[in-house]
Amino acid sequence: MSETETGNDGIKLVMAIIRPDKLADVKTALAEVGAPSLTVTNVSGRGSQPAKKGQWRGEEYTVDLHQKVKIECVVADIPAGDVVDAIAEAAHTGEKGDGKIFILPVEGAVQVRTGKEGSPAV
Amino acid sequence: MSETETGNDGIKLVMAIIRPDKLADVKTALAEVGAPSLTVTNVSGRGSQPAKKGQWRGEEYTVDLHQKVKIECVVADIPAGDVVDAIAEAAHTGEKGDGKIFILPVEGAVQVRTGKEGSPAV
Amino acid sequence: MSETETGNDGIKLVMAIIRPDKLADVKTALAEVGAPSLTVTNVSGRGSQPAKKGQWRGEEYTVDLHQKVKIECVVADIPAGDVVDAIAEAAHTGEKGDGKIFILPVEGAVQVRTGKEGSPAV
Repeated sequence: MSETETGNDGIKLVMAIIRPDKLADVKTALAEVGAPSLTVTNVSGRGSQPAKKGQWRGEEYTVDLHQKVKIECVVADIPAGDVVDAIAEAAHTGEKGDGKIFILPVEGAVQVRTGKEGSPAV
Repeated sequence: MSETETGNDGIKLVMAIIRPDKLADVKTALAEVGAPSLTVTNVSGRGSQPAKKGQWRGEEYTVDLHQKVKIECVVADIPAGDVVDAIAEAAHTGEKGDGKIFILPVEGAVQVRTGKEGSPAV
Repeated sequence: MSETETGNDGIKLVMAIIRPDKLADVKTALAEVGAPSLTVTNVSGRGSQPAKKGQWRGEEYTVDLHQKVKIECVVADIPAGDVVDAIAEAAHTGEKGDGKIFILPVEGAVQVRTGKEGSPAV
């Protein structure tokens, strides 16, 4: 991901919505790029892909929210673009529903145990 | 929502905390406003409304965290204000606990399947 | 937390990842600092601390994602730094895994019930 995309200065939150079965690969990729610290949330999501129709006891139902995993990773010293690239490569299957990755600005950070602030806290 | 509120340039994350039973209406409203892509998380929340007291086997307990749903929707081409208005209208009951909607700036985006970056990725 | 850290102008999202058993203390601390409104999500997380190894029926397994709670609290009139300090103090044990707290900028806010916008909506 180009540096201009990430406006790489200061602390960033990298937020990725990926397939649940890609979590292990992404965790490994994050550790390898030097960003082991992450938060994982079970979510459901709908991209722009069409809803799936199903039949149950003669009743038609629509499944349009698919199980996903949200990964949040706050970085300071490592360029957010490198983290995005690591996640994108590990999460990729080439099929619809692979997910998306976003970068948000973070203005402040504190580590609860030590009280460290700013980049050292991340 | 007024444009000055949304500072409508670039990619935005619209984050809404709503009643669980309003999810279907909000999903429909988002599809109709042209923003079908969303992430849904089960959360619990407390607004400023007072806690509810209950009795169980003679013991008084306080319920102050209510089941809610968090909806996250990243938009680029559609004004975030339009998405906020669509969610607000669909989620509204007029009772305490209807929830809140926030807009956060997003600095970068990547679609995992295609590698597209920026607004086209959203 | 120093004011320069929080760049205290406008609406902020305070996002904390803490130990589950510290939720009650943090809820009390937030009410006392005048920021009762919060969203709670069950998450799992990995800091930079090493993974724990375990044995089950002779098989070694690695636990590296620990149960955590994510607390999100949007504030406008109260300095985000005060909210961060209240959470940090209540969530502190001095052990690895106490968690982290981040501050993100928020560009817009709407209260669904009343339609209020901006700081009054928070």
